[in-house]
Amino acid sequence: MYLSPSARLAIYAEGEFGKGRSKTAEGVLRYGQNPIAAVIDSTSVGKTIVEAVGIKCEAPIVGSIAEAVSLNAEALLLGTAWSGGRLPESWRSDIMSAIRAGMHVVNGLHDFLADDPEIAKLAAQHQKLLLDVRRPPDNLDVATGLALKTKAFIVLTVGTDCSVGKMTTSLELAAETRKRGHKAAFVATGQTGIMITGGSGIAVDRVIGDFMAGATEKIVLEAAPGQDFVYVEGQGSLAHPSFSGVTLALMHGSCPQALILCHKSSRTCIHGKGLEEFPQPAFKRMIEVSQTMTSFLRPAKVVGIGLNTVGLDEAEARRRVEQAQEETGLPATDCVRFGSAPLVDAILAYREKTK
Amino acid sequence: MYLSPSARLAIYAEGEFGKGRSKTAEGVLRYGQNPIAAVIDSTSVGKTIVEAVGIKCEAPIVGSIAEAVSLNAEALLLGTAWSGGRLPESWRSDIMSAIRAGMHVVNGLHDFLADDPEIAKLAAQHQKLLLDVRRPPDNLDVATGLALKTKAFIVLTVGTDCSVGKMTTSLELAAETRKRGHKAAFVATGQTGIMITGGSGIAVDRVIGDFMAGATEKIVLEAAPGQDFVYVEGQGSLAHPSFSGVTLALMHGSCPQALILCHKSSRTCIHGKGLEEFPQPAFKRMIEVSQTMTSFLRPAKVVGIGLNTVGLDEAEARRRVEQAQEETGLPATDCVRFGSAPLVDAILAYREKTK
Repeated sequence: MYLSPSARLAIYAEGEFGKGRSKTAEGVLRYGQNPIAAVIDSTSVGKTIVEAVGIKCEAPIVGSIAEAVSLNAEALLLGTAWSGGRLPESWRSDIMSAIRAGMHVVNGLHDFLADDPEIAKLAAQHQKLLLDVRRPPDNLDVATGLALKTKAFIVLTVGTDCSVGKMTTSLELAAETRKRGHKAAFVATGQTGIMITGGSGIAVDRVIGDFMAGATEKIVLEAAPGQDFVYVEGQGSLAHPSFSGVTLALMHGSCPQALILCHKSSRTCIHGKGLEEFPQPAFKRMIEVSQTMTSFLRPAKVVGIGLNTVGLDEAEARRRVEQAQEETGLPATDCVRFGSAPLVDAILAYREKTK
Repeated sequence: MYLSPSARLAIYAEGEFGKGRSKTAEGVLRYGQNPIAAVIDSTSVGKTIVEAVGIKCEAPIVGSIAEAVSLNAEALLLGTAWSGGRLPESWRSDIMSAIRAGMHVVNGLHDFLADDPEIAKLAAQHQKLLLDVRRPPDNLDVATGLALKTKAFIVLTVGTDCSVGKMTTSLELAAETRKRGHKAAFVATGQTGIMITGGSGIAVDRVIGDFMAGATEKIVLEAAPGQDFVYVEGQGSLAHPSFSGVTLALMHGSCPQALILCHKSSRTCIHGKGLEEFPQPAFKRMIEVSQTMTSFLRPAKVVGIGLNTVGLDEAEARRRVEQAQEETGLPATDCVRFGSAPLVDAILAYREKTK
């Protein structure tokens, strides 16, 4: 169950819009299907959305739930994520105000609103939906390599780190592949992807360890029939101390044939509090390790590099793309800034070669 | 909360004792602290425990809950595990009979008895404990590499597959290390280990993806103070399609300095239904991959091979040990059959070398 595609969203990013933690807000603004009534962040009022995050959207930034209500918002979408995914206590009164004002709530945190007695009771009284998109289905099982049997060509994004643009890259690649006349599905494996696709997919990072690969296998098998390509959204990184297990489960659950290695150009160390001492791994090392780890089920080749050059000027961004190409001998691009054609060319060519 | 160490156990392995699925029963029989009243398996009545599983224990094998009650059993410990960890419907009536007869129940399945309304109600009526040892604590967080800061030398068991003897090897190594006069802790990361240690540890395979490494870090940090060595029980295998993510999370959560690679000599393919097409990986490949994957946080060296030669005759078992040594250039042994001295020698020597 998800919102109607016509439900108008207020995206909640209080205190955080465009400051590095609002990736859910930005993903939904860039790729979501629902109309946007407003973004809520009292510290960003006065700016436009394009000024704050570089995404074209006519909706205003407002300072309160009440203002969003006056713009006919029908659902509050919690748009900032925290490492650990807990519900900040400071959000509670805004969430309750939104419910009282007649809004549904879309939540991607690990903490589920429907399990919070106070919030659940209020939502029931007002007959509003609490959509905890990270809640996994009950009927999960262990993986058994069944993704190997699909006819579609499976492409997984992997990364040098978490929060580098794996979802964005997978979405851009799927869109470009469709433009070329192929059937291509995007498989959401995280909260923002699920919001963008209108409720499909499973947040694999929320699934219990033994069933992570099985959950991935399940959504790949569901998405694959009738498709030429399946683009699976990656999570975390084999190099990330907190999330590497999720990354490997995605690799073994989805059994990709090709990988796109994603990297955020401005990063110097691994992303997350307390991880400053862990440097960004080199492209070559990540390519080698990613290919090695898929090889237990089906060897996948890294066929291109997807950069996220946000924050760099155009000349520097182009320099980073060239540098990545030189370092790896693979095509590279920033899919959002320079288009995804070089990566789709590489994927199509590799599929032909391995047919 | 766990049972009193003096509570007499009836180990439930109906239809399965010694047939390949009773590893929890066997682990508790071999290493557990509670006295054993009986093993329950109506298909094994007439055999002794040593005949059925090769473990010395005076308790009889009985055919029913009622017989176990007559032997003053105070708790029913569910001793067989299923891939996926669901509660078989056929166990339900025996579990309810045990509760009615005054027994607590110790459960290591993914399905929790306390969450089953019928069983929970009955247990409450009879004031009996339902000990779901796989239930993770609520206060977990993501890992940040804090295990790197401990002073104890951390040794993790890894495997070519799941169910090969990683827990057993870790327990044997910890015991032998203590015999040599060092302080050594065993850290339980799975249901059987938790039962053996009397309720300490976390079943990391039951933790949600994002917190697996964090859970591992937490139990290592709790166990390490005052110890010279910490032996962390491994789970799954980097080569196992279903559980590889759990294995990698353990590696990055525990930050080991040394690894022991475990292998069941009789295996030819990866363990689990539907996995027949995946061959056992070679020792050299697993050593290489294990060392590579730890290296993102702290490079760990595989310093020895722990074999499980169950089912092979003595001459063949010794041949396999020699073969493993020749193939890898590392010391090898079956810790249960031939003692763990060669591996502890290697661990102590490697610790000295890297001090």
